[in-house]
Amino acid sequence: MSLIAVGTMAFDAIETPFGKTEKIIGGSATYVAYAASNFVKPVQQISIVGYDYPKEEMEDLKKRGVQLEGVEVVPDKKSFFWSGRYHEDMNSRDTLITDLNVLADFNPKVPDSYQGAEFLMLGNLSPDVQLSVINQMKKRPKLIVMDTMNFWMEIALDGLKEVLKHVDMLMVNDAEARQLTGEYSIVKAAKKILTMGPQYLIIKKGEHGALLFDQDSVFFAPALPLEEVFDPTGAGDTFAGGFIGHLAKTGDISFENMKRAIIVGSAMASFCVEKFGPTRLKEVTKEDINERMQEFKDLVSFEIELG
Amino acid sequence: MSLIAVGTMAFDAIETPFGKTEKIIGGSATYVAYAASNFVKPVQQISIVGYDYPKEEMEDLKKRGVQLEGVEVVPDKKSFFWSGRYHEDMNSRDTLITDLNVLADFNPKVPDSYQGAEFLMLGNLSPDVQLSVINQMKKRPKLIVMDTMNFWMEIALDGLKEVLKHVDMLMVNDAEARQLTGEYSIVKAAKKILTMGPQYLIIKKGEHGALLFDQDSVFFAPALPLEEVFDPTGAGDTFAGGFIGHLAKTGDISFENMKRAIIVGSAMASFCVEKFGPTRLKEVTKEDINERMQEFKDLVSFEIELG
Repeated sequence: MSLIAVGTMAFDAIETPFGKTEKIIGGSATYVAYAASNFVKPVQQISIVGYDYPKEEMEDLKKRGVQLEGVEVVPDKKSFFWSGRYHEDMNSRDTLITDLNVLADFNPKVPDSYQGAEFLMLGNLSPDVQLSVINQMKKRPKLIVMDTMNFWMEIALDGLKEVLKHVDMLMVNDAEARQLTGEYSIVKAAKKILTMGPQYLIIKKGEHGALLFDQDSVFFAPALPLEEVFDPTGAGDTFAGGFIGHLAKTGDISFENMKRAIIVGSAMASFCVEKFGPTRLKEVTKEDINERMQEFKDLVSFEIELG
Repeated sequence: MSLIAVGTMAFDAIETPFGKTEKIIGGSATYVAYAASNFVKPVQQISIVGYDYPKEEMEDLKKRGVQLEGVEVVPDKKSFFWSGRYHEDMNSRDTLITDLNVLADFNPKVPDSYQGAEFLMLGNLSPDVQLSVINQMKKRPKLIVMDTMNFWMEIALDGLKEVLKHVDMLMVNDAEARQLTGEYSIVKAAKKILTMGPQYLIIKKGEHGALLFDQDSVFFAPALPLEEVFDPTGAGDTFAGGFIGHLAKTGDISFENMKRAIIVGSAMASFCVEKFGPTRLKEVTKEDINERMQEFKDLVSFEIELG
């Protein structure tokens, strides 16, 4: 089943304790596409780039079954650029540069050829942009998942709350869940968010794994204990791409299948952090993914004997 | 199989965002005993108390199959007293008062009746005290587990390293593992600790669960997502008590059984935090424990289909 991924395609320049990159390819929709295209084709991309976005990168994506009809190319502007420096703990970072460039005028158009998509991944963008995409869909997708961030809670909370009413799942990190609800307890925050629109919620906790909630149930997916996190950039988007990619592949949006999907997302994210940017994601094979899924299974599997 | 628990029996006064207690019963050996006695009898306690330690509490422990022959009662001194205030996140706390009292002279004697115990839990105490207990055992226990803390790393690192050579398992939190090894990565820290003596290592991450390592394998036990953590005091000791209690009950120290044991420990810890001090632990039934174990199973169980 087809999947629409809305988000940024951009350049990042990254500093970590392990090294430093010049401008490399990044952006939420890029990571979603690289992760999801392991599981489902086509991935229908909606984004905006400038004249400087490399043609080879576009070709690489096309070869993986990513459609780019929905990617606007602005001939006289540069692509979105973000630069950041990670702290030693790799959980926190400082933004050094944010050049919106083309992103300032992003007014996404859903191509006719994308209509009928059953899965819609709304990357972290302004709530207006997210809502505009939802409103352009002639048939409501089977599952709409949205990402967001603290920035939008600060400057566009009403808009964000409006989008929440139209989506099936929110995907945020623990700090964002707390900020959105004013609840310190993750469980209380989850309960509150599930009254705001979405039926499902994923709270990402980085190296501490992720939680999946619906009204009745909670599921915990661990993160793989890694010797080194080389570069966390894009890990959250890669997680999202693996998650929704698995759901779109199977067409099954039961809670049971979402559990599998969150493990797929965690596995993809564990690859993402091994090298700078999406480098590792481009190399990963089906065998690598299967092996990593088994590692996750082994990591948490136990048998209980009730006494 | 019998289990020796060495540690403090003490008074705590606790402030949390939810409330405040006067002096209540606490201490590492108290929590270990309340947790472990659900699974194994006898629990053979080694500790020291003052004249002020309540007789009823001693009786409560005896009724649960806890032997107190190894608990020295000092007639003219007070019991160890700790007072602390938890921050809103419940992960960090300020110590307000530490009155060592009897603990300053703690020179544990292993009673003859305890000799032959197959499991030994060394609670967080000075490395000298821990080593003295090991040296008094005429037959080496099947499994020796030690807890410790940053304080001993700062003032008695050499002694601590010596004890490490004589134990089978170290149980510390993530910050302590980092401090002990100088490694930020938990996986690297674990590898280093496993060269320092112990064959097994548990790294506790509070609300983020716990990791069990040996040379070849890693297992992750989640913490139960709780709406409210009422009082985290004693949760780590309760975890230890549940863990070693299950091992002592089954007599099986395979990695597979340690996985179950770490879930038992996590389940017991999840009860501990529900009320002040050991209050909740005193109420918990076999049925409560079985139910909670099933919740842990449900929390992390998933089926994968490799594609």
